Amino acid sequence: MNLIILTETDRVGENGFVLSDHRAEHIRAVLKRGVGDSVSVGILNGPTGSAKITRAGSDLVQLECDQWSEIVPPIPEIDLICALPRPQTLKKVLLTCAMMGVRSLHLVRANRVEKSYFSSPLILSENQLPYLTEGLSQGKLTRLPQVQVHDKFRRFFEDELPTFGSDTSESLRLLCSPDTEAPLDKVFSAGAAQVVVAIGPEGGWVPFETELMQSLGFRAFTLGRWTLRVEHAVTAALAQVELLRLMQQA
Amino acid sequence: MNLIILTETDRVGENGFVLSDHRAEHIRAVLKRGVGDSVSVGILNGPTGSAKITRAGSDLVQLECDQWSEIVPPIPEIDLICALPRPQTLKKVLLTCAMMGVRSLHLVRANRVEKSYFSSPLILSENQLPYLTEGLSQGKLTRLPQVQVHDKFRRFFEDELPTFGSDTSESLRLLCSPDTEAPLDKVFSAGAAQVVVAIGPEGGWVPFETELMQSLGFRAFTLGRWTLRVEHAVTAALAQVELLRLMQQA
Repeated sequence: MNLIILTETDRVGENGFVLSDHRAEHIRAVLKRGVGDSVSVGILNGPTGSAKITRAGSDLVQLECDQWSEIVPPIPEIDLICALPRPQTLKKVLLTCAMMGVRSLHLVRANRVEKSYFSSPLILSENQLPYLTEGLSQGKLTRLPQVQVHDKFRRFFEDELPTFGSDTSESLRLLCSPDTEAPLDKVFSAGAAQVVVAIGPEGGWVPFETELMQSLGFRAFTLGRWTLRVEHAVTAALAQVELLRLMQQA
Repeated sequence: MNLIILTETDRVGENGFVLSDHRAEHIRAVLKRGVGDSVSVGILNGPTGSAKITRAGSDLVQLECDQWSEIVPPIPEIDLICALPRPQTLKKVLLTCAMMGVRSLHLVRANRVEKSYFSSPLILSENQLPYLTEGLSQGKLTRLPQVQVHDKFRRFFEDELPTFGSDTSESLRLLCSPDTEAPLDKVFSAGAAQVVVAIGPEGGWVPFETELMQSLGFRAFTLGRWTLRVEHAVTAALAQVELLRLMQQA
């Protein structure tokens, strides 16, 4: 944990927080900090700062936050669409999205998504929270990605997608695809404030799906000469978008 | 498994192979294939092809390879240097390297590497093999990355590094670093046939280490505005190198 993520339910005073779960254990056993030491903290969807340990018992740690940074580190806007992956993969995708500052994650039904994935407990946001928080903690971020599950493929792309985000008219829609040889720079627009990237299921999208997405302005690109797992495709896509954004700023 | 990886120990004839481990289970339970069906196979460090199932019992599957492709898919050369990560992370790094076609992986000692990691069973190549094979199987590749463990930081960089690979005089040496704002394109050379990327430990390299690497020609770049885990940094770095290579070819 690079940042101990705190929530309102941990709060016991204006700047006091009590932790009694794995975070307390982490502070004691991994960070090896005790009373009087400081740790880096972040309020969920709020500022980061530092906190002094005022109590460290066998089952709880009490913190007094003594310094807040005004600014939550800005991360460029990016939204991700993923065909709903198997639960074990979804855990990794959730962590990655939080760690890499994804604004929203849309988990959609697709032809090659097994129906049973939609009855996984991980569909519920309270069950996603631990993985998201772990990602924020690793990435030193506090802004929780918005995660939405979309049960209807066509309705999501045709009706719901146009309404998300504040600047969709300016958004660049991208589609990772093994069926094209165009690298990302061929479809990347300089200055697109908002980027949406779609990642398919294991086995890929079916032609109906890619055709519908392309008719809605999604531009296909290849991540490279690989066959990747979903969680690796997510990381690779975010890394390539970031590289092109950094290149444009220079 | 996108490719069932076969080894010489599985061979029972010129083109016959018998599997009795998790690959047999995977063919039956996940791929749901039986006698007469075909599966995609690859010989470790050899060709890929297809095989017909000639027997499918409760605990073994027999295959008869009936078609070989002459050519193992070429993957651009890349070597990776990683500060030896914790065992759980190393498993992921091994899988990723095999899946993404890394030629060699050098696991080195560094100041912030815990000494105990060098006594992990995963230091031994026979214990690495399952993770590498799983990666090849996912990536549809057959060439096993060469994995070497280097117990001395300075000796590795000063004495051993210059001798690995066949074209080190032409090699581009790169160093992921949070201490620079230069994106990868700023340090990437058009036409470098061989690329070596170094990824630090959790907590990063210490100044002595980066200074030594930079004195040996390693050029520092940032993956982006993130704090990533080692396994994500590996994927992100490989993805960014691949993007620049694809851009140069176009």
